[in-house]
Amino acid sequence: MSRPIVTFTSDFGTQDWFVGVVHGVLAAHAPDSPRVDLDHAIAPGSIAHGAFVLEAAASDFPPGTVHLAVVDPGVGTTRRAIAVQARGQFFVGPDNGLLEYALASPEAKVYELTEEQWFRRPVSRTFHGRDVFAPVAAHLAKGVPIASFGPRVLNPVRCTRTEPQLDGDTLLGHVVFIDRFGNALTDLTAAALAQVFGDTPDEKYEVAVLERRVRGLARSYGDAPVGALVAIVGSSGRLEVAQVGGDFANRLGVGEGDPVTVRVLPEG
Amino acid sequence: MSRPIVTFTSDFGTQDWFVGVVHGVLAAHAPDSPRVDLDHAIAPGSIAHGAFVLEAAASDFPPGTVHLAVVDPGVGTTRRAIAVQARGQFFVGPDNGLLEYALASPEAKVYELTEEQWFRRPVSRTFHGRDVFAPVAAHLAKGVPIASFGPRVLNPVRCTRTEPQLDGDTLLGHVVFIDRFGNALTDLTAAALAQVFGDTPDEKYEVAVLERRVRGLARSYGDAPVGALVAIVGSSGRLEVAQVGGDFANRLGVGEGDPVTVRVLPEG
Amino acid sequence: MSRPIVTFTSDFGTQDWFVGVVHGVLAAHAPDSPRVDLDHAIAPGSIAHGAFVLEAAASDFPPGTVHLAVVDPGVGTTRRAIAVQARGQFFVGPDNGLLEYALASPEAKVYELTEEQWFRRPVSRTFHGRDVFAPVAAHLAKGVPIASFGPRVLNPVRCTRTEPQLDGDTLLGHVVFIDRFGNALTDLTAAALAQVFGDTPDEKYEVAVLERRVRGLARSYGDAPVGALVAIVGSSGRLEVAQVGGDFANRLGVGEGDPVTVRVLPEG
Repeated sequence: MSRPIVTFTSDFGTQDWFVGVVHGVLAAHAPDSPRVDLDHAIAPGSIAHGAFVLEAAASDFPPGTVHLAVVDPGVGTTRRAIAVQARGQFFVGPDNGLLEYALASPEAKVYELTEEQWFRRPVSRTFHGRDVFAPVAAHLAKGVPIASFGPRVLNPVRCTRTEPQLDGDTLLGHVVFIDRFGNALTDLTAAALAQVFGDTPDEKYEVAVLERRVRGLARSYGDAPVGALVAIVGSSGRLEVAQVGGDFANRLGVGEGDPVTVRVLPEG
Repeated sequence: MSRPIVTFTSDFGTQDWFVGVVHGVLAAHAPDSPRVDLDHAIAPGSIAHGAFVLEAAASDFPPGTVHLAVVDPGVGTTRRAIAVQARGQFFVGPDNGLLEYALASPEAKVYELTEEQWFRRPVSRTFHGRDVFAPVAAHLAKGVPIASFGPRVLNPVRCTRTEPQLDGDTLLGHVVFIDRFGNALTDLTAAALAQVFGDTPDEKYEVAVLERRVRGLARSYGDAPVGALVAIVGSSGRLEVAQVGGDFANRLGVGEGDPVTVRVLPEG
Repeated sequence: MSRPIVTFTSDFGTQDWFVGVVHGVLAAHAPDSPRVDLDHAIAPGSIAHGAFVLEAAASDFPPGTVHLAVVDPGVGTTRRAIAVQARGQFFVGPDNGLLEYALASPEAKVYELTEEQWFRRPVSRTFHGRDVFAPVAAHLAKGVPIASFGPRVLNPVRCTRTEPQLDGDTLLGHVVFIDRFGNALTDLTAAALAQVFGDTPDEKYEVAVLERRVRGLARSYGDAPVGALVAIVGSSGRLEVAQVGGDFANRLGVGEGDPVTVRVLPEG
């Protein structure tokens, strides 16, 4: 029996009952699928924040997983509702760029959700998470073919970011997320570092955030003394800057969007 | 195999392990029932807040759902523990008004929880969520008849609210909840508006909260420009007042209990 | 079919996607095991806090339960990863004292996690919750024998606390946790009180926190008027001091580590 995981990401927070109601729809229609809350602390209405979380976390889930995502400031307007098949998984949400991680795949197939027989009816004007997206996600998890929900869409709304740039011998990126420990995650991936700097030894790197410079890439937070700043390739394959046992971002005033530079120290 | 959803609502918050321990009891006794957290951010001891959440959310769940609710400032005293069969669902919690949504149904059947063989023993003095309510909810979900848990109760404690009033041509209600987006939910339902104002066109309505007046009922938040105030019938069938892309309640100092009025604008 | 509960405790918070990703690993490898979040609000890096939560809550779960716990400031260093069989349950986490509740059992059997075929690969440097601990917890839940994961460990790292002391006729302990209601939980258990004071009647006790004295042990919070201070043996078998309907700890400035004394009032 196939019973893929259904994940759920939203900007609903956990102070209200909205997350629970969506889970009720999932549990009613796909009771055998494990349900996993990915993140409900997306800043209200922040499509970029939600898109980043899907990009950081979706690949940690197995093939066939259905990712339900609802950051939907345009609910009730003419914005489309879509489902995307990409990267061996499914993604369901509004057509506003939130599903960028899926859409960025060259093999992505996008479908508009128009077949109302799959919806919870009547469809409210303000809560398509409950009435449209969750029922479709549940039916996808139960094996309903994605083409059953509506026609192909060829021009989905995209959510593109500034890509890291190479300036002379310096790679320029940005802080994209501050985690609970105050670590600053960047948009510089291990793959990008390898492409630009080849097999430079870890100790030859210099990473700078605002005016703070860190020499070398660490292998773990625990390898440096408490209080030290470290740069490290973290669990999602991105360069992070952190203070061991501290709260780097809050103490130094680093925030999302701040520039990050990486270069290789000259010999000697 | 029947395996109804069990929802769980409490004022336990999510900083401690109490919610998890209750889930452990549910999972141990009813492992096949999907468990859904409805809301654990009920203000500590606020029976009215908990009752409102059940009223707003319970009907979104399928028939047979078991709603476990624990807001229980009188735990350990002589307050009764009850289970209620109403509206095609089951409700389990303290007899202090928390289950008002169920009790308000004319067909509600109420049972006191006295048959200790269903409890977790020894029963503590302070944590009946774990020791009394969760085991009973789990056994209800497994199909134990509700009359097995104890005798009928004919005088359960009620939690009545001030009903909306008609004053001349103006309907008077109150803000009952501020959600995460700062939207102010009221106790004025779509049904009440229809009863008082018939099929008045949406644009003829005027809604006022404190001194702020909003003309017309919107069809979606996205139909008005960012910053605009809108009045809308939201996903739980209640009149809400919101600021598009903003935080109405915090910016304008609106809080629970504030008066809301609705009238129809004169012609011309 | 055996399908034990898997609990999950961490210092990850719920602002990020890390808890969800770990659930994904559990759901992928042990889809039939109920998953229960015990507590993710452990203070970042606080091994003692995490150890206390396991001590307070683990025994509420049935035999065979697998407790996954990740408070891991030394991730990526040479600290060992371990699994422990103790008290009829399993515990998986870093070898840093976090699993003290299990280790304190004389029958505890401790195994180092070295057999990489059970891990998620490649193993990151910074997220062993996802890559090491969750896969092992899931496989334990599926019935893989604990000795499959690596060799016995005879000198696990311990996290010992100051034990309560008897000073003349006064029992000295400490506040170990402030819960959401502002109740101060202590390290003085019902068993310790019984051992020191025998069957002293409840009303003869005097409990003091900082300079606040409370006479008698209450049977429930609801037995005293709102505002009153009460001392009570709570749901986890520990002496608690609380203010009825209030927030004892915040109002009186009581915090973790503050001394608590218990004595028996003289006759007359």
